[in-house]
Amino acid sequence: MIAKSKDRDAARVTRYIAVCGPADATEEEVAWAEHIGRLIADAGAVLVCGGLGGVMDAAAHGARRAGGKTVGLLPGDTRAGASKYLSVVIPTGLGEGRNALVVRAADAVIAVGGAFGTLSEIAFALKAGKPVIGLHTWHLEKSGKKVSVIHRARTPEDAVELAFKLLG
Amino acid sequence: MIAKSKDRDAARVTRYIAVCGPADATEEEVAWAEHIGRLIADAGAVLVCGGLGGVMDAAAHGARRAGGKTVGLLPGDTRAGASKYLSVVIPTGLGEGRNALVVRAADAVIAVGGAFGTLSEIAFALKAGKPVIGLHTWHLEKSGKKVSVIHRARTPEDAVELAFKLLG
Amino acid sequence: MIAKSKDRDAARVTRYIAVCGPADATEEEVAWAEHIGRLIADAGAVLVCGGLGGVMDAAAHGARRAGGKTVGLLPGDTRAGASKYLSVVIPTGLGEGRNALVVRAADAVIAVGGAFGTLSEIAFALKAGKPVIGLHTWHLEKSGKKVSVIHRARTPEDAVELAFKLLG
Amino acid sequence: MIAKSKDRDAARVTRYIAVCGPADATEEEVAWAEHIGRLIADAGAVLVCGGLGGVMDAAAHGARRAGGKTVGLLPGDTRAGASKYLSVVIPTGLGEGRNALVVRAADAVIAVGGAFGTLSEIAFALKAGKPVIGLHTWHLEKSGKKVSVIHRARTPEDAVELAFKLLG
Repeated sequence: MIAKSKDRDAARVTRYIAVCGPADATEEEVAWAEHIGRLIADAGAVLVCGGLGGVMDAAAHGARRAGGKTVGLLPGDTRAGASKYLSVVIPTGLGEGRNALVVRAADAVIAVGGAFGTLSEIAFALKAGKPVIGLHTWHLEKSGKKVSVIHRARTPEDAVELAFKLLG
Repeated sequence: MIAKSKDRDAARVTRYIAVCGPADATEEEVAWAEHIGRLIADAGAVLVCGGLGGVMDAAAHGARRAGGKTVGLLPGDTRAGASKYLSVVIPTGLGEGRNALVVRAADAVIAVGGAFGTLSEIAFALKAGKPVIGLHTWHLEKSGKKVSVIHRARTPEDAVELAFKLLG
Repeated sequence: MIAKSKDRDAARVTRYIAVCGPADATEEEVAWAEHIGRLIADAGAVLVCGGLGGVMDAAAHGARRAGGKTVGLLPGDTRAGASKYLSVVIPTGLGEGRNALVVRAADAVIAVGGAFGTLSEIAFALKAGKPVIGLHTWHLEKSGKKVSVIHRARTPEDAVELAFKLLG
Repeated sequence: MIAKSKDRDAARVTRYIAVCGPADATEEEVAWAEHIGRLIADAGAVLVCGGLGGVMDAAAHGARRAGGKTVGLLPGDTRAGASKYLSVVIPTGLGEGRNALVVRAADAVIAVGGAFGTLSEIAFALKAGKPVIGLHTWHLEKSGKKVSVIHRARTPEDAVELAFKLLG
């Protein structure tokens, strides 16, 4: 009985963490993303990503190797081009509009590196009031002043720790 | 080595089957959906659904009890109202437009009973040329002639067998 | 002054009517759609459609010739392939999912002929509780009984008259 | 005959310009947006916006007063909350995901002020390779270096002139 209610509680608090970053990533970004993916899986959270290469593929790789669940929300109509490390592949057919879905599916967003697609995901998460953690990603400025809404991490460990801390 | 390459082949042909039907379902529809979910999981396929109650919840329940993977694509912005039998919950924020995503995510669609949402899913699948199997669902007619594009099943076993047969 | 406040009232009740039907339409369907488009414009309503050829193009043609406003919601990412009779062209990038938007934009849906895309639009409109008027389109049946939720018209005049009557 | 073919050419090159900015705008932003809207209409282009208040409403106001066409793509399911200066109101039902549609509908994006929604629109436009002109909006930086991808304008005239110049 106790075990059952514990299971239910556990189910209720399953976290979804999005890892966002370019398909065309540097070696360093790939290494970071893989590490981040592993730590997300270790924490029992579901990894959400855009489902393609580079940072997305690496994060999924890391999470799967650690026995985690990985979900890819693809821009296209079919599962073509999906990372092979996804437990679940969802072709949204929304093009870049799928970035809004990646963010909706997540409780927090970790941005690694910075392409324009990643910037749109950061923007959607900020708009929705979800924590955004950045590792070598965009900095924002308005009217000559820094706008410090992206939580900065220096390492993959930092990034994941921050994400869970901010989620409480 | 052989096992590894077999696993890879298996991964390549993972099927996704959508079970579509009303949240407000009859007891019979719920029993059918649960049975269909179980058979989908037994066949090693991923169950996709709209993630809410009735037929969706029952199909997810059946699949989870058989150890299968279940994905729910919700209409809302949050995971509120999701069936508790989903391994992965994706709040799409697309309202009824998420029906297009349920169909895109699937290789074949099994429709149980018939609400208007289910009809939209049948229509999208037919438009995309994906097999549609129906159990006590809509019949279509045009200019006084039956249009027999929905494959009819009489039982849950029939429905799932037909789906896999049509997928080849 | 009076004229001004009348204008405002008029603005408040501007109706949007969707005309749905196949790109690959018969000559008869094209003629009907053009006539329907003209009558919608004559009634001062905005014509909404999927923005491509066949029924969509013909309805836009009819409405534009009568001095009406015509909006096309395209499935693709660009304005390529748009009917040249649209006052406003919106490339949604949603693929067939744009059918949900055509229906959302409309107060009533007139279906001419019947392809599967049209069936999805009928389904969305029924789900949303919006009036659906059909001219040589789908008939629905469930458990051996006709489901008479599509209002039948015999002529373009009938169809448009019914649409406005149902909108009150 | 010549007039007709000229009209056709004109139709082919109708430009769509999006004006993006917060619903909760400053007086200065509202004044700028209205001026920009007017200049867009004067240039014969269609104004596209998110359809709500603040910058969106002001841009539509300016364009309508100059006799221009204005299109609002709303986040909600209905036309509630739409600016009254829109010639065409499209409720997308996509929530913040409609920002992707605002950008798809446009040939160039003018960003006024800067909320997070606006940032997502800037990001989508940059990703799609469409010109982005900014008036008191976000500045982007990566790895300690400014990323000058947003064309800066100092006045509404500047902004609209730049937009058309960049479109060639």
